[in-house]
Amino acid sequence: MVEPVILATWTFGQIAVRAGWPRLAAGSPSLDAVEEACRAVEADPEVMSVGYGGYPDASGEITVDAAIMRSPAECGSVCAVGGFMHPVSIARRVMEKTPHVMLAGPGAEAFARGQGMVPTDLLTEASRQAWEKWRKEHREAGPEGNTAGQGKGAAGLRPAAPREPPHDTVGVLALDCRGVLAGACSTSGLPFKMPGRVGDSPIIGHGIYVHPEHGAAVATGVGELVMAVCGTFLAVEEMRRGAPPAEAAMAVMRRIAESGKVAEGDQVGIIALAPSGGWASAALRPGFCVAHKTKDRDELLDCGQVLFA
Amino acid sequence: MVEPVILATWTFGQIAVRAGWPRLAAGSPSLDAVEEACRAVEADPEVMSVGYGGYPDASGEITVDAAIMRSPAECGSVCAVGGFMHPVSIARRVMEKTPHVMLAGPGAEAFARGQGMVPTDLLTEASRQAWEKWRKEHREAGPEGNTAGQGKGAAGLRPAAPREPPHDTVGVLALDCRGVLAGACSTSGLPFKMPGRVGDSPIIGHGIYVHPEHGAAVATGVGELVMAVCGTFLAVEEMRRGAPPAEAAMAVMRRIAESGKVAEGDQVGIIALAPSGGWASAALRPGFCVAHKTKDRDELLDCGQVLFA
Repeated sequence: MVEPVILATWTFGQIAVRAGWPRLAAGSPSLDAVEEACRAVEADPEVMSVGYGGYPDASGEITVDAAIMRSPAECGSVCAVGGFMHPVSIARRVMEKTPHVMLAGPGAEAFARGQGMVPTDLLTEASRQAWEKWRKEHREAGPEGNTAGQGKGAAGLRPAAPREPPHDTVGVLALDCRGVLAGACSTSGLPFKMPGRVGDSPIIGHGIYVHPEHGAAVATGVGELVMAVCGTFLAVEEMRRGAPPAEAAMAVMRRIAESGKVAEGDQVGIIALAPSGGWASAALRPGFCVAHKTKDRDELLDCGQVLFA
Repeated sequence: MVEPVILATWTFGQIAVRAGWPRLAAGSPSLDAVEEACRAVEADPEVMSVGYGGYPDASGEITVDAAIMRSPAECGSVCAVGGFMHPVSIARRVMEKTPHVMLAGPGAEAFARGQGMVPTDLLTEASRQAWEKWRKEHREAGPEGNTAGQGKGAAGLRPAAPREPPHDTVGVLALDCRGVLAGACSTSGLPFKMPGRVGDSPIIGHGIYVHPEHGAAVATGVGELVMAVCGTFLAVEEMRRGAPPAEAAMAVMRRIAESGKVAEGDQVGIIALAPSGGWASAALRPGFCVAHKTKDRDELLDCGQVLFA
C-alpha cells in the first residue's frame, strides 16, 4: 500500500484537493480523484479562470480547455469548447470512448452532447460584468485597445488582467493507494483572450503529462511558454533519466528561460510528482503555490523553487 | 554558407520540396520555403489528405490543421479550421501577428478572415463522392457502422480507409544557406474522422518541433501515437543529447512501441534533420518514404529504418 497524495495548483487548488481526497482515502483510482478535483473547481463560480463563472474571451463567450491522463496509452483532451460545465469529464470520455486524444471546438461539443452531457451557460453575472467593464475600458483606450491579446509580447498576453490575478489553470496530480499516478487540468484560459486561443492545458506533454513508471507533471501560467518546450513532458523525461522531482521541475524553468520568450512578469508554475510519492514544484517567479493533501496534511504551500527570485 | 536541403513526407512530398526549393536556391529563409512547400500540397486537389480536395470528416465537412516553427520562440498553429485553402499560412500569421501559439476552430477562422484571407470551399467533387460512398457503406453496415472513428482501437482509427492510402500529413523540414532550420506541416486529418478530432500535426512537439541549435523533426501517421510521446520534441531532445538524426528518429519509434498503444498496421513516420544538414528517417513499418531535394538531388527515398520490419 502506498500513501496517497493529491496536489493542485494555486490557492483554489485547496478546493480541488479537498474534493478529490475522499476518493483517494476510499481507495478509488487516482484518475477518479483528479477528475473529481477538477470538477469542483469547474463548478465554482468564484473561480474566474476555470469553467463556470470563468472570464469570457474578447467576444464575450467562454470557451474551456481540459485534459486528463494516466499513461501514454490513456489520455484525452478537449479544447475551445463552449457551454459545458465539466470539460475535464468530456476529456475523460474522449480518452475512454474514442480512439482519439483530442477533440476541438464544435466537434467536441457535439461529442459531449452525444455522451449525454447537457449544455450550460457558463457566464455568471460577475463574469459578464467583468467583460463589459473590460470592453468599455478597451473602447475608451481607442483602436489600440481593441487589439487586446492580438499584439506581440507581454502586453498582448495580459491586456486585460484584472486586479486580482486570475490564478490560471487548475492542475491536479494524484497518487492512489495502489501506486497509480494520474493528472488532469482545466481552464477557461486567459481572461478576455483572443477567440479560439488554446494554451498548454489541453495538450498532452504541455499542460499535463503522466507516465506510470517515471512520474507526472502539471503546469500553469503563461501557456505559450510551456507549449514551446513541451514543459510537462520534459519534466517527466528528466525524472525518467533519474532526476528527482525538484530537479526535473527546475529544469523546465531553465528551459523556458532559455527559449528567449519570457517577458517581464510572465509566470509559469509546475508541479512534479514521482511514483514514489515524492514531489516538488518550481516557478519562474515568487507567487506560485501548491495545495497539498494527504492523510495527515491539508495545506497550501509556497512554491519551493523560483528561477527569478 | 551551408548547403541547403528540403525534405518532406510521403510521395506527395515531391510536390512540396519542388515548390519550396526555389526559395532555398534563391537564398530565402527556410521558413518561407517550408510554408511554400506546404501551400503547394494544400492547393493540390489530387492530394486527399491535405487542404483542398481532402477527405471530409464523418459529417461531410473538411477541417484542417497546420503548424509552422523556427524556434521555441517562433511557432504557430491552427486546428479544426474549416474553409481555408492555406492553414499553414494562418499558422504563420498566428506565429507572427499574435502572442499566441495555437488558435482553434471558429476563432481561428475569424482570425484568418481578419488577416484578409478569403474562405474557400475545400470539398472537391472527388472528395464529396468519396464521402457519399463511405456514408452509404456505413449505413449498409448497420448501426455499428455509424460509430466510425468512435470505437476504441485500430478499427476505430481507420474505419473508412480508402483503398489508396491517404498518405496523411505533409510534413516539411528545411535548412537554408544561412544554416537556419524551419519546419511546417499540414493535414485534413483522418479520412471521415470524428468531427473535431485533432491529431499531432498542429501541436508543437507532436507533429513538428524545431530548435535552431539542436535540430528539427516532423512526424506523420497515426497522430494519437505521436501525441502520446511528444514524438518530434523527443527526437530533438535526443539530438540535443548528442544522438545523430538516425538514432533520434529510431528512439521515437521505440518509445511509441513502448507506449503499448500500437495496433496492427499502425504506421508512424518521422524525419529528423540536424543543423549540420545531416538527416534521417524512421518508421514503425515499411512503406514510409521521404522526398529529398538539394542542389544536386531530387529524389523519393524509402525510409531508411523500420522498427517492425
